[in-house]
Amino acid sequence: MKVKSFAAPAANKPLTHYEFERREPTAGDVELEVHYCGVCHSDIHTAQGDWGEVEYPCVPGHEIAGIVTRVGNAVTKFKPGDRVGVGCMVNSCGECEACKQGFENSCFKETVWTYSSKDPVDGTDTKGGYSTIMVAPEHFVLPLPESLDMAHAAPLLCAGITTFSPLRHWHVGPSMKVGIIGLGGLGHMAVKYAKAMGAQVWVISSSPGKTDVAKSYGATGVIVSTSKQDMEKAAHTFDFLLDTIPKAHDLSPYLQLLNLHGTICLVGPIEPMPGFHSRDVINGQKSIAGSGIGGIKETQEMLTYSAKHNILPEIEIINIQDINKAWDSLKHKQMAKRYVIDMKKSFPSANQ
Amino acid sequence: MKVKSFAAPAANKPLTHYEFERREPTAGDVELEVHYCGVCHSDIHTAQGDWGEVEYPCVPGHEIAGIVTRVGNAVTKFKPGDRVGVGCMVNSCGECEACKQGFENSCFKETVWTYSSKDPVDGTDTKGGYSTIMVAPEHFVLPLPESLDMAHAAPLLCAGITTFSPLRHWHVGPSMKVGIIGLGGLGHMAVKYAKAMGAQVWVISSSPGKTDVAKSYGATGVIVSTSKQDMEKAAHTFDFLLDTIPKAHDLSPYLQLLNLHGTICLVGPIEPMPGFHSRDVINGQKSIAGSGIGGIKETQEMLTYSAKHNILPEIEIINIQDINKAWDSLKHKQMAKRYVIDMKKSFPSANQ
Repeated sequence: MKVKSFAAPAANKPLTHYEFERREPTAGDVELEVHYCGVCHSDIHTAQGDWGEVEYPCVPGHEIAGIVTRVGNAVTKFKPGDRVGVGCMVNSCGECEACKQGFENSCFKETVWTYSSKDPVDGTDTKGGYSTIMVAPEHFVLPLPESLDMAHAAPLLCAGITTFSPLRHWHVGPSMKVGIIGLGGLGHMAVKYAKAMGAQVWVISSSPGKTDVAKSYGATGVIVSTSKQDMEKAAHTFDFLLDTIPKAHDLSPYLQLLNLHGTICLVGPIEPMPGFHSRDVINGQKSIAGSGIGGIKETQEMLTYSAKHNILPEIEIINIQDINKAWDSLKHKQMAKRYVIDMKKSFPSANQ
Repeated sequence: MKVKSFAAPAANKPLTHYEFERREPTAGDVELEVHYCGVCHSDIHTAQGDWGEVEYPCVPGHEIAGIVTRVGNAVTKFKPGDRVGVGCMVNSCGECEACKQGFENSCFKETVWTYSSKDPVDGTDTKGGYSTIMVAPEHFVLPLPESLDMAHAAPLLCAGITTFSPLRHWHVGPSMKVGIIGLGGLGHMAVKYAKAMGAQVWVISSSPGKTDVAKSYGATGVIVSTSKQDMEKAAHTFDFLLDTIPKAHDLSPYLQLLNLHGTICLVGPIEPMPGFHSRDVINGQKSIAGSGIGGIKETQEMLTYSAKHNILPEIEIINIQDINKAWDSLKHKQMAKRYVIDMKKSFPSANQ
């Protein structure tokens, strides 16, 4: 079927309107009309070719919420009219130990990403949620809890799970002091989850003046990473740090903040990191870890948890015609909110 | 009192005979006659100035076993004639959270190392166990379990605790597959501990031909790190890797061996490490950790465990007059054993 979208025609070119052919749903597929799609820093990285060569036009978008329009014969969990989400992945091998344990995001063979991956079903380049219609295998479609509205649910599928999963894995809870490095799309979600999990939460940011907004999400305070005084005062006090800075950087100043046996977990930078001095992890038996989104099972848990605790992203709804302006803002400053594209409003006649 | 020793007179100079003055034991000190002292790669690194400037002459040695000769008035745990050990540290602030929790090795203020540190008691440069007599505060002196002979106990104080502590901290046990990278002084101890703890243990070594010796310590087999076939076959299978390579190296090939949520722990290289790609920890939610010796409490636990399970280092006893030859061997190849200096035989008339 013909689908309308916005696509990057080449690296570093503005996104433009693009119409393409999506496959009809196979027996195992769910088709959905996209109502909202979050705008993630990964969209920019991928479209720019920062993470390797991609096929153009590239249709980004992996924070997708919409309503089921058709299902294949073999689909059992969904019916037309259901409110659903699709996140960062649309397939995986399903057979390796990672997939079998529910970590499709770490498939030992190859996770099929929602855009700019090779789709094993039809061999095409996958195309994301900056489009009017999505088609994905049932296993990678998530029912949305009733109390979550679609515009707020969309960013949970990447920004939500990327922060929820490591906070859960490293047992963040009461009696823990947790630092969230960076207060952007990921960071502000992390503050809310860590607070809900019972931890004492601090934001660590290079820019001063974020105290009020950080506190409004549940943080106890802000440590300004460029302030020697702030950093020295906080040395050896953090049990867990979630690092959401979206580019490579020196970890050494943050390792000094960790308490005995503390962990800093990278979720922001997906690129070569500079070297580190092993003494900075040897002293205090510390760890440098990483985490990327989460498996389907834990994504579902995250949705349930978010609905139950009313943890929602701060969002600004835009039309897709403003996407290039939104990308520019994202590139140049870290904002404690997510842009979310209203796809129905952007393409009012798409499905008529 | 006058003490005989061997010392490095300058960086990269052969060790030579050196006589120096040690303080008389204060009220809180234990004095011991050194019977055996293990030879650790750290001795070489420190004496060479690899880890920062040191004062010369430098008297190395931090795997010390001997017999108590005198105790200060305030000492309650020891009396002359007791068999004791002194490891890598002889003091710490005693007041920070790390010290209070028994991790004097990670003192937030400053751990006082057994040699080439500033001794807070008398302000002198600390001098290690390549000497006939040691003096150390009671808290940093460890009673040796009866069944441990002193020559084998000495290397436990560094090589033993450095491998025991991280294996315990990361819960190595049955149902875990553990890889020990490097089969030298640290590596061979790590194989024995991990085996005793119930894990399936593999040695990962750059040199083939180590299978028999690795198996003799309890390993299931050897993975040759330079064999693409070996490394690919073992990909995604290890729950925990202990990295004993004594110099900086690329972690990427080893990160590929880790299973979901796996950890590689550095205990060998204490220097700037090269960069790494964050994707190698993000995929599979993996960790790069570090660990250095252990606190006094866990060192005592390690001695008890080693005695109970009869886990002893492979040793070759030497006279101190052969120390430069031993250092040369250590510098040029990784050997699955520890040189241990017989100090009584080396200085037959020292205490007469």
